[in-house]
Amino acid sequence: MSRALRTRDRILEGAIDLAAQLGLEGLSLGHLAERLGLSKSGLYAHFGSKEDLQIQVLGAAAERFVDEVVRPALEEPRGAPRVAALCERWLAWASTGRSGGCVFVAAGTELDDRSGPVRDALEATQRAWLETLARACRIAQEEGHYEQGVDPRQFAFELQGILFSFHHQARLLRDPEAANRARRAFGDLDARARGGASSREPSC
Amino acid sequence: MSRALRTRDRILEGAIDLAAQLGLEGLSLGHLAERLGLSKSGLYAHFGSKEDLQIQVLGAAAERFVDEVVRPALEEPRGAPRVAALCERWLAWASTGRSGGCVFVAAGTELDDRSGPVRDALEATQRAWLETLARACRIAQEEGHYEQGVDPRQFAFELQGILFSFHHQARLLRDPEAANRARRAFGDLDARARGGASSREPSC
Repeated sequence: MSRALRTRDRILEGAIDLAAQLGLEGLSLGHLAERLGLSKSGLYAHFGSKEDLQIQVLGAAAERFVDEVVRPALEEPRGAPRVAALCERWLAWASTGRSGGCVFVAAGTELDDRSGPVRDALEATQRAWLETLARACRIAQEEGHYEQGVDPRQFAFELQGILFSFHHQARLLRDPEAANRARRAFGDLDARARGGASSREPSC
Repeated sequence: MSRALRTRDRILEGAIDLAAQLGLEGLSLGHLAERLGLSKSGLYAHFGSKEDLQIQVLGAAAERFVDEVVRPALEEPRGAPRVAALCERWLAWASTGRSGGCVFVAAGTELDDRSGPVRDALEATQRAWLETLARACRIAQEEGHYEQGVDPRQFAFELQGILFSFHHQARLLRDPEAANRARRAFGDLDARARGGASSREPSC
C-alpha cells in the first residue's frame, strides 16, 4: 500500500469516529486536521471538499461494517444461526465500547431531512443493510428454520427496531439492561418466525 | 399572556422545527434570529445562552409532545386501547408531514456521547416517555387486557423499537409502507401481550 493510501486510511479511521460523535455535518476539514495533527492543506490533498470527505467516510464506515458485522455472520451456518449472528454482531458494533456508537444511526437522523449526494450515499448503505437482514430471513426460510408465511421485509423492520432501541437505551439512557432486552426481543422474534410460541429465553 | 411571553413562545415554536432539522447543536442564536426575522440581541433578551435556548426548546417540545401524544391517549379507555393510542399518536407526531421528524429522536443520537445539562434534560424526557409506555402496559394488565407475565419495561423497549424503525424507514428511506409495517408490528406485540397467537392484522 502506498504511503498516500495509508495516510488516507488513517484519516478516514479518525473521521469515522469523529462523525459518530459529532455527526457528519460536524466533520469539518479544519476540525479533523486539528484532531489528527495534520495540516488542513494536507487534508485537502486527499479530500477535495467536505462533501467528498463525508461520502468517503460513509464508504469507509460501510467497509468496516461489512468486516465487523456482515462477513463474520456469513461464516455462520445458513439460516437462523446466521440471522442471530447478524443481530449479535450489530450489538457489538454499536456497543458502548465504541466511541460515538453507530455512525449510520447518528447520520440517519441528521440527514433524513436533507437532499444531495451525502444523504443518497447514506440511504444506499441503509437499504443494503435492510436487504441483508431480509435475505438472511429468506435463507432461514429456505433452510426450513423459519415459516414460509414470514414476510422478510417485515422481519427486517422489526429486527432493525430492536437494534435502534438498543442503541437508544444503551447510549442515551446508559441502561445496563439494554443488551439483555435486545436479546430477549430478538429471541421472541426468532421464535415467532420459527412458528413456535414466543420464547422468553435470550437466543441472540 | 404578556407580549414577551408570546414572543418567547413563537421563538420556541420556530426553534423546535429548526432543531428537528439541524439538530440541537445547529440551533445557534444567530441562525434562529435570521430564520425568524428577529435581531440577535432580541433573542438574547429571551435566552441568555445557546445552552439555555436548547434546554428551553426541549421543554417546549416536551409540552407539545404531551399535548399531541400523551394527553389524547389518556382520553382513551384505560388498558389496551390507551396503549394503541400512544402508538398511533406517536406515528402521527413523527410523520413525514412534520418537517424534521421527531426532535427527540434527532437529539438522541446527537447528544448521546456528550455530557451536561442539555443531555440531562433530553435524557429525562426519554425516561419519562418510556415510563409512560410501561405504565400504559401495567394498566392494561390491571384491566385484564394484557397477561400478568408481560414485563412492562420489555414491552416499552419493543414498542419504542417499532417507533424508531418507523421513523428511520419513513424519513430516511421514504418508504410508503413504513406506517403499515409499524402497525403490523404493534398488532403483533399487542396480541402477544394479550396472550393470543400473533395477529397479522394491524390493530394500532
